[in-house]
Amino acid sequence: MNIPLDRDNPTALPRQIHAHLERLIRERLLTPGTKLPATRELAQQLGVNRGTVALAYEELVAAGWARAHVGQGTFVAERAAGAGAPAAAADAAPLVALDWSGLFSRNAQILGADDERWRAVTPIPSSGTVVSFAGGMPDSGLFPTDAFRRVLNQVIREEGAALLQYYPAGGYPPLRRYLSTYLLRFGLEARPEEILIVNGSQQGFDLIARTLIDPGDFVAIEQPTYPRAMQVFRSFGAQLLSVPWDGTGPRAEVFERLLERHTPKLFYCQPSAHNPTGLAVSPETARRLLEAAARHQVPIVEDGFDGSLYYGDAPSLPLKAIDRGGVVIYIGTFSKILFPGLRLGWLVGPRPILERLQAAKQLADLHTSALIQAAVHRFCERKLLDRHAVRVATEYARRRSLLLAALRRRMPPEVSWTEPQGGFSLLVTLPPGIDAGALLPQAVERGVAFAPGAPFFVDGSGQRTLRLSFSSVPAGRIDEGVRRLAEAIKSARSRLRGREREERAAVPVV
Amino acid sequence: MNIPLDRDNPTALPRQIHAHLERLIRERLLTPGTKLPATRELAQQLGVNRGTVALAYEELVAAGWARAHVGQGTFVAERAAGAGAPAAAADAAPLVALDWSGLFSRNAQILGADDERWRAVTPIPSSGTVVSFAGGMPDSGLFPTDAFRRVLNQVIREEGAALLQYYPAGGYPPLRRYLSTYLLRFGLEARPEEILIVNGSQQGFDLIARTLIDPGDFVAIEQPTYPRAMQVFRSFGAQLLSVPWDGTGPRAEVFERLLERHTPKLFYCQPSAHNPTGLAVSPETARRLLEAAARHQVPIVEDGFDGSLYYGDAPSLPLKAIDRGGVVIYIGTFSKILFPGLRLGWLVGPRPILERLQAAKQLADLHTSALIQAAVHRFCERKLLDRHAVRVATEYARRRSLLLAALRRRMPPEVSWTEPQGGFSLLVTLPPGIDAGALLPQAVERGVAFAPGAPFFVDGSGQRTLRLSFSSVPAGRIDEGVRRLAEAIKSARSRLRGREREERAAVPVV
Repeated sequence: MNIPLDRDNPTALPRQIHAHLERLIRERLLTPGTKLPATRELAQQLGVNRGTVALAYEELVAAGWARAHVGQGTFVAERAAGAGAPAAAADAAPLVALDWSGLFSRNAQILGADDERWRAVTPIPSSGTVVSFAGGMPDSGLFPTDAFRRVLNQVIREEGAALLQYYPAGGYPPLRRYLSTYLLRFGLEARPEEILIVNGSQQGFDLIARTLIDPGDFVAIEQPTYPRAMQVFRSFGAQLLSVPWDGTGPRAEVFERLLERHTPKLFYCQPSAHNPTGLAVSPETARRLLEAAARHQVPIVEDGFDGSLYYGDAPSLPLKAIDRGGVVIYIGTFSKILFPGLRLGWLVGPRPILERLQAAKQLADLHTSALIQAAVHRFCERKLLDRHAVRVATEYARRRSLLLAALRRRMPPEVSWTEPQGGFSLLVTLPPGIDAGALLPQAVERGVAFAPGAPFFVDGSGQRTLRLSFSSVPAGRIDEGVRRLAEAIKSARSRLRGREREERAAVPVV
Repeated sequence: MNIPLDRDNPTALPRQIHAHLERLIRERLLTPGTKLPATRELAQQLGVNRGTVALAYEELVAAGWARAHVGQGTFVAERAAGAGAPAAAADAAPLVALDWSGLFSRNAQILGADDERWRAVTPIPSSGTVVSFAGGMPDSGLFPTDAFRRVLNQVIREEGAALLQYYPAGGYPPLRRYLSTYLLRFGLEARPEEILIVNGSQQGFDLIARTLIDPGDFVAIEQPTYPRAMQVFRSFGAQLLSVPWDGTGPRAEVFERLLERHTPKLFYCQPSAHNPTGLAVSPETARRLLEAAARHQVPIVEDGFDGSLYYGDAPSLPLKAIDRGGVVIYIGTFSKILFPGLRLGWLVGPRPILERLQAAKQLADLHTSALIQAAVHRFCERKLLDRHAVRVATEYARRRSLLLAALRRRMPPEVSWTEPQGGFSLLVTLPPGIDAGALLPQAVERGVAFAPGAPFFVDGSGQRTLRLSFSSVPAGRIDEGVRRLAEAIKSARSRLRGREREERAAVPVV
């Protein structure tokens, strides 16, 4: 520990040491329970004698800032008097406070302005009283945590030193080879060197954006869509042009018209398990989107669930599997089918773009943890992922059915929703006049939460929509959650009708 | 597996299946040893009868593409005839090949142009015949791999499900609290909420660059410096202005003059264990740099080793510890003192900038693996890091002394070098006329490697310098490595003198 001491200062040295430590404790830089350095050790560091430090510690204990435990040392008190209060010490005040906000890049300014939209996306968690359909994440209750712990042990024992050293940016070669074979199941043909390992799909968006987008560029994007993808493209200065979804995917004729008028740098979509609707692109729409993109030489960024999470019939092929124009960059992730917290995903693309993405990856954070990659590879190789995927797909299918049944049973007639073919969620449309954002606090009061749909819309619409995620709601709570939501909607509707009646009554009779 | 079948095609179905699989094997999309799907399974997927698939497999085996193991299934042959040859199948050819290079952003174009400089930085590894001083990395032979495996087990057992789920972007709270106290050792006062966990210092550079730099901005940077930091700032469009090091740090009067003429967005330096020289900034220079930065309201990005790796006297305080103007963003990392492969580091900065950096982090990859954070926290909390740090600092100090002694003993008089006070390396300056890049292949021929110094220089100079890293060279090989290097230098010097004599001799007598 470094404590600046003024030896010419009339204040005795123990007092200076005491004052410094007191400030650190008060400002919670030294947190309760922290052991202070041994007196001998600190005395040596400061070049004072040991008694000086001992005196300072005694004063701290006397004032209630610390506790001495005989034979163990001196510790910051659990409830240090006044801890957490702002520093009064004048010597801590900066000479000049730098005005950081004047220095922010355009990218940071856009991020700051997007903050509000951001907060709306932060999901309300489930609790004893609230059934939350808000979080679009896998159920951590289904995690194969212990099996993963075992493979992690194996790979550390076998090749720990190599996995904990710097590693090539492209990824752990056996994982790239495994993915190359794995992706064939979905009709997707990629050589290991056409696969780049990244920190989840979010880093995929980021690397693609910085490799393709300059400020002012157009980006075509499905609507509704995943808000954080939208935000990445915006933060790099892109202007978003939306292509609305219908039941078969992003509307191909809108996309074609858009490409005739503009030259977007890329088109982003989630064709196989669309978030928030859970819908999938039809083969006919897929073909038309690809043909238009190839004709106009516009890359498609395909954000794909890996195809294991589908309900009912097998989904149509990924766009990348039928991409004869070589225009698709595919983004895959282990976040949905295994663990989000690993931050592990991959990009598949033609060599010229993949090399640039790899250079961008290297500059962004050198490489993704090889230890995590090796453990996931081992998990896959032992067929543990296949087994896990079947297990969770079955459970999510059950929750999806329960949710759809509850919606049919409980919802008033003007409410509609999508029937998800994959993924974790569906999109509900409320009766005219009801705003999902305004409904949320009333719903939470009744013990149910959801994600308002507006942040998923590019053009500021979607106020009447909300997303219900079924993946992390226990099966036994789904019906009750929907019942509460239906009550909240009915109540909002009758208040709305009351107001309409009043407004009609208030119209003066001419 | 998806195999498109044309049922109207006169080619029998087994022939189509065979042709498809043969192509996948030939193109190494199905790699040797891969098990083909069971005939029953594939038949069901393709909607054909099982005999059709069995026939296709028999043909593959007959042609040497696969091997059948009775009772186990059919596997891609280890040395499939002609595997790896380019695809001849016309149906795989793209309709239109997208020209990706025309789509690259400015950022990607800069990255591409920097590629050459890049390759020079990729270190030549040690081998049985080559002693490599090239890699500036910790010695993986000293890694506490097994102790880390044990703490990883503990945290997965105790809180695995939470650590494998999505996690807040700021970081694992106990790790932020630990760092807050840990940093006090180095005089650095930071509350947990002023600390952001990132994927190693490389991601720190990246987040800072995107938060502060717009294309065309100036960035002041020490020279020599860490090439990958330089490259990040350049990739965001910055123009670099160099501030040369002398024995006490980046020259303060050059920095002051620079700030009078330009308004750089930030100043990047490594004050405590400078890579490549190993030098540290003197207290007087530190004070002047900080005062100038505060006066001109220019942030300093301090890339700090954490202070545990120093040789001789304790290093002077980090700039951040004496930063009364609130201008310093500090970057710390576990890569040097623990494991590079974890990709774990942190940023310390005033709240206004830290909040923006956190927003950028969230957009870049959501968060850093909480599992890794928790394991490292446990490792630190158990004082295993402290113990490890003492052990490696002692060993690196020994290697440093051996290297310095060998240089003094072996090098010809015109060679000079820095005396590192911290870090992993030192910088050698060669006799006039000898280029380190040209020397490298000759040195490798004699069994020694190093990193040429030019990539560490901002302005294209540094050709006469080279970096020697002592951290990962076994103590017993250091002297021999230096002996070989000295021989290579002497040989280059005598060739140079020979040429000079010839040139002088060739001057016509007037």
